Amino acid sequence: MIRIAVDGMGGDYAPRVVVDGAVLAANDFPDLEIVLVGQPEPLKRELNRHKVVGGKIVIEPATEVIEMGDSPVQAIRKKKNSSMLVSIDLMKQKKADAFVTAGNTGAAVAASTLNLGLLPGIRRPGIAISIPSLRGISIAMDVGANINPSPEELYQYAVMADIYARAIYNKKSPTVGLLNIGEEESKGTDVLKEAYKLLRDSSLNFVGNIEGRDFFTGKADCIICDGFVGNVVLKMCESMVETALNLLSRELRKSPVSLLGAWLCKPALEAIRKETNYEEAGGAPLLGVNGRVIISHGISSARAIRNAIKVAGESVIKRVNERIVEELGNGTVKAGAYGKSSGAS
Amino acid sequence: MIRIAVDGMGGDYAPRVVVDGAVLAANDFPDLEIVLVGQPEPLKRELNRHKVVGGKIVIEPATEVIEMGDSPVQAIRKKKNSSMLVSIDLMKQKKADAFVTAGNTGAAVAASTLNLGLLPGIRRPGIAISIPSLRGISIAMDVGANINPSPEELYQYAVMADIYARAIYNKKSPTVGLLNIGEEESKGTDVLKEAYKLLRDSSLNFVGNIEGRDFFTGKADCIICDGFVGNVVLKMCESMVETALNLLSRELRKSPVSLLGAWLCKPALEAIRKETNYEEAGGAPLLGVNGRVIISHGISSARAIRNAIKVAGESVIKRVNERIVEELGNGTVKAGAYGKSSGAS
Repeated sequence: MIRIAVDGMGGDYAPRVVVDGAVLAANDFPDLEIVLVGQPEPLKRELNRHKVVGGKIVIEPATEVIEMGDSPVQAIRKKKNSSMLVSIDLMKQKKADAFVTAGNTGAAVAASTLNLGLLPGIRRPGIAISIPSLRGISIAMDVGANINPSPEELYQYAVMADIYARAIYNKKSPTVGLLNIGEEESKGTDVLKEAYKLLRDSSLNFVGNIEGRDFFTGKADCIICDGFVGNVVLKMCESMVETALNLLSRELRKSPVSLLGAWLCKPALEAIRKETNYEEAGGAPLLGVNGRVIISHGISSARAIRNAIKVAGESVIKRVNERIVEELGNGTVKAGAYGKSSGAS
Repeated sequence: MIRIAVDGMGGDYAPRVVVDGAVLAANDFPDLEIVLVGQPEPLKRELNRHKVVGGKIVIEPATEVIEMGDSPVQAIRKKKNSSMLVSIDLMKQKKADAFVTAGNTGAAVAASTLNLGLLPGIRRPGIAISIPSLRGISIAMDVGANINPSPEELYQYAVMADIYARAIYNKKSPTVGLLNIGEEESKGTDVLKEAYKLLRDSSLNFVGNIEGRDFFTGKADCIICDGFVGNVVLKMCESMVETALNLLSRELRKSPVSLLGAWLCKPALEAIRKETNYEEAGGAPLLGVNGRVIISHGISSARAIRNAIKVAGESVIKRVNERIVEELGNGTVKAGAYGKSSGAS
């Protein structure tokens, strides 16, 4: 049985919404055992509101809570008995196969890196998020773990995103694009120019630089960027849906004819909303750490938590980390200049 | 009379669409004289398709054309008689008050900087674009001129964007936000942390760091960012409207009821489209150069060109550059640590 540790205290609406999501997951995926980590009393109280029919949920006590506003470094130094650090420890001790948290992202990245270490050969972990595009799902990496990646780190993000796209989304030969301000090889910062060369010389299906306008067109299955740009873009996307709906409802209220029209369009709008909803992806794996860590949005709904738990289970079944280690180790991924000089392939 | 030089050969649909836009502007703004710069034959041919009733359009010959794909440095070195360089020369010789181009942005930035020089005290020019938000117009700066700004350069972008927002949009005390990956002062790169301090200690109405999600909420009237992030975000916005409409039409075609609904909503959708359309802003000033340069999108329509010419005229009337020089010179803008140490205020 696959055991998923879930940070019961992490997220803006924890513990309630996290427990709700855990129950949804337990009922939908009976092959998973969910370990809710956190303060037992509140967790039990929330659990008692539900009937768990499918899978199994157990509680693992952790007295402290890392708050969303805590400094990551301070938090992981001082709150050793927090739900986040206890969860990571469960993984380290092989008592859990994966970990889902909607808590403080900075703390999750720092604690995972420090306490689990990195996969062999990997220099820095990165967050890989699934985004809807006109041609299905694309992966954007990194979206917030590393705001100043080196060319080699960007190259490694491409390697990991490629494996993730193949393992989870069954893409045969995922296209890889480097997010830049122009298509020409000469565009962008020195770091990007160097990363371009590494990607071009690798065995990845590199389609060159892509621009902001290509983000949702599916021009690349894997969109490689630094964590600063990735984070800004991601947060912007989230707000754009809201902004668009805001504008729409403002305009529609101006006339009864439009209101009727809106009512008739509702199923189509709902379909789009669902297709573009971050909840459907639910969680983004922190790839590169020696453990399976799935990071969810702080404002995650129960459905988003349920889907993050699903992603965690899939990471185990589809052997994402094992494949990263294997393919980097046996040279399935032909490294470019970087691999040649450092001997990583 | 205000004279606006227009790059007749710049843009994906030049010269036709540029001439169409110039004619629209001439008819709508009879106080402007428009100098169409470029190859006389094609320009005359296009002009002959129209009747100019309001203002005045003259042609200034320039034999060469800087292409969209040209290397900026090569282009400005070799194509001395291009429409872009001739236009900038007209400004230098005070034969034009402002310049509008939908051509190669990199070449426009480089040529303007090199041939016109910078305003006193300014270190690097930046592109300030007007974007629609839920609370009116915001200014984002820089969106592509400077991908690696120093803290001082970011600070100066804030000073210029603030003046632009006051001069053009009559904002009383524009709010200034620094685009970052979190609201806390400690977030982001070292450059951003340093820029935060300069902004905090200045007399600007600094509201702190803002995130991607604040881009369209109007949380800041002036959104300050480096040209890399600004460019990616800008291009993404453009494509999102298209992506949304694509998704919508795909969904709506699935049922006749939705199709009827869509037809009834059409006026509301059109209103939003107009409100969020880049064409309405038309052009983005390159602030900081000693001249008035308005940069338009390569795919500009005639309406966008017309509006860019309007922006150019307003820059002259509202004395944007003069105000930048005055306020930096007389200390109206109280500089932070940077100003104190360098004596710029």
